[in-house]
Amino acid sequence: MALAMDAAALNAFLANDFEQVAPDFVIDSVAEDVLIARLKVKDGHLRPGGTVSGPSMFGLADLAIYTAILSHIGPVALAVTTNASIDFMHKPEAGRDLLAHCRLLKLGRVLAVGEAMIFSEGKDQPVARCSMTYSIPPKR
Amino acid sequence: MALAMDAAALNAFLANDFEQVAPDFVIDSVAEDVLIARLKVKDGHLRPGGTVSGPSMFGLADLAIYTAILSHIGPVALAVTTNASIDFMHKPEAGRDLLAHCRLLKLGRVLAVGEAMIFSEGKDQPVARCSMTYSIPPKR
Amino acid sequence: MALAMDAAALNAFLANDFEQVAPDFVIDSVAEDVLIARLKVKDGHLRPGGTVSGPSMFGLADLAIYTAILSHIGPVALAVTTNASIDFMHKPEAGRDLLAHCRLLKLGRVLAVGEAMIFSEGKDQPVARCSMTYSIPPKR
Amino acid sequence: MALAMDAAALNAFLANDFEQVAPDFVIDSVAEDVLIARLKVKDGHLRPGGTVSGPSMFGLADLAIYTAILSHIGPVALAVTTNASIDFMHKPEAGRDLLAHCRLLKLGRVLAVGEAMIFSEGKDQPVARCSMTYSIPPKR
Repeated sequence: MALAMDAAALNAFLANDFEQVAPDFVIDSVAEDVLIARLKVKDGHLRPGGTVSGPSMFGLADLAIYTAILSHIGPVALAVTTNASIDFMHKPEAGRDLLAHCRLLKLGRVLAVGEAMIFSEGKDQPVARCSMTYSIPPKR
Repeated sequence: MALAMDAAALNAFLANDFEQVAPDFVIDSVAEDVLIARLKVKDGHLRPGGTVSGPSMFGLADLAIYTAILSHIGPVALAVTTNASIDFMHKPEAGRDLLAHCRLLKLGRVLAVGEAMIFSEGKDQPVARCSMTYSIPPKR
Repeated sequence: MALAMDAAALNAFLANDFEQVAPDFVIDSVAEDVLIARLKVKDGHLRPGGTVSGPSMFGLADLAIYTAILSHIGPVALAVTTNASIDFMHKPEAGRDLLAHCRLLKLGRVLAVGEAMIFSEGKDQPVARCSMTYSIPPKR
Repeated sequence: MALAMDAAALNAFLANDFEQVAPDFVIDSVAEDVLIARLKVKDGHLRPGGTVSGPSMFGLADLAIYTAILSHIGPVALAVTTNASIDFMHKPEAGRDLLAHCRLLKLGRVLAVGEAMIFSEGKDQPVARCSMTYSIPPKR
């Protein structure tokens, strides 16, 4: 199945429609089975001790899974997160971007389910794991 | 059981130790069984359409449950979120602060579990529900 | 809003349509805002040490939230669990039934969200907390 | 790192210590990075329509992640499930065993995190995904 949007199209979409968060994120790559999204870690994402905050990791996972859905169905529909579960396993290292490796597990007519594994760039051990469900509005 | 920290002490702690997020939040009240935390909704918390973003709600729940733990054990220990599950049920209304009503369900020696119900201020219907687990480091 | 099914109707429905699990469960009571379901704890629900197994508690929460949905919409639709999150906080006591106190947080056209707090009968401290999402099939 | 228990040792452990559920499960294989557990689907696991029940899938995921932990740390410690999140994505097919492919994401001193992807045997599309956290008691 051909993708509906490639990385350039997803980044352009974010810049246009999510201008408040777009400067923090880049879609590094997208293929049929995996999308890689990057959080460009800045001071505003940090907690005391230099670690990246939980909400910042949540935001990265949310953006990764959302854009993975759009890569398949295109920018027409407004998918909404209905549920998220996240495990924080290790502290991210200071001074490294975070990368979310995202897979879609289900892309149904009404619901989509994706998961993201988050890594400090250059490290093998995941810092967090997240799964999310999105509700896909019916086509008009 | 007397609380270790009241609302004033928790707000002072946030201002000192979490200066990057403290301007967005206030602990409105704390009692033994419920803590109410407020997200002062600003433009940076919004998504297209004026609704509050998922990461902002996650951040509110995280702060509410974290401070509820501190209200019982004091600021000495550095509790770390290990797991979170969140359901987004309705879109928050534009132009209203969000309030998280938080209860601790378990406060053990090693793990604490809390849940937060999030409301648009002045509304009865919850917009989101979140439960989180925190790992409490051993006392030295 | 009047309930579509009361406790007697729900128990009759379980006996008819879920005969494999029905002997283990009773709907003790149902009102608009809370349903109480009981797991009649038997040897098959136990783990070494006499505690009730996790899958048994999961099954109780699932049944409680499912019947709470049916109490509002009636037995016509076949709701399906799409997501569940459960926290196990304390070990259930041996020799006591488990009671799930269930509330619906959302009852939408497509999705319903409910939560259940599980107690050993006669005890105040919850042993587990669960939230679940159900997909409600469209009416024909 | 050598495994502390292989598949034969894990199956013997289940037969000894979990005799109530052991007849339903087999550990098909275990390696350092993945364990495969099988639910031998029987009538008692089914729901109306012939699909495997949610609690049965939960039980399979629980057993898979638990035995994956034991494969690394041995049968000495009594790990306890503290949290589980499960997504049900597709209905299992009738008449097929279920296989859980399990990975450990974290194996810490106090907490372990694992995930399991569940398939109907012989099918490529996962029917469910589960992540769980276990609390590992301190060594005496």
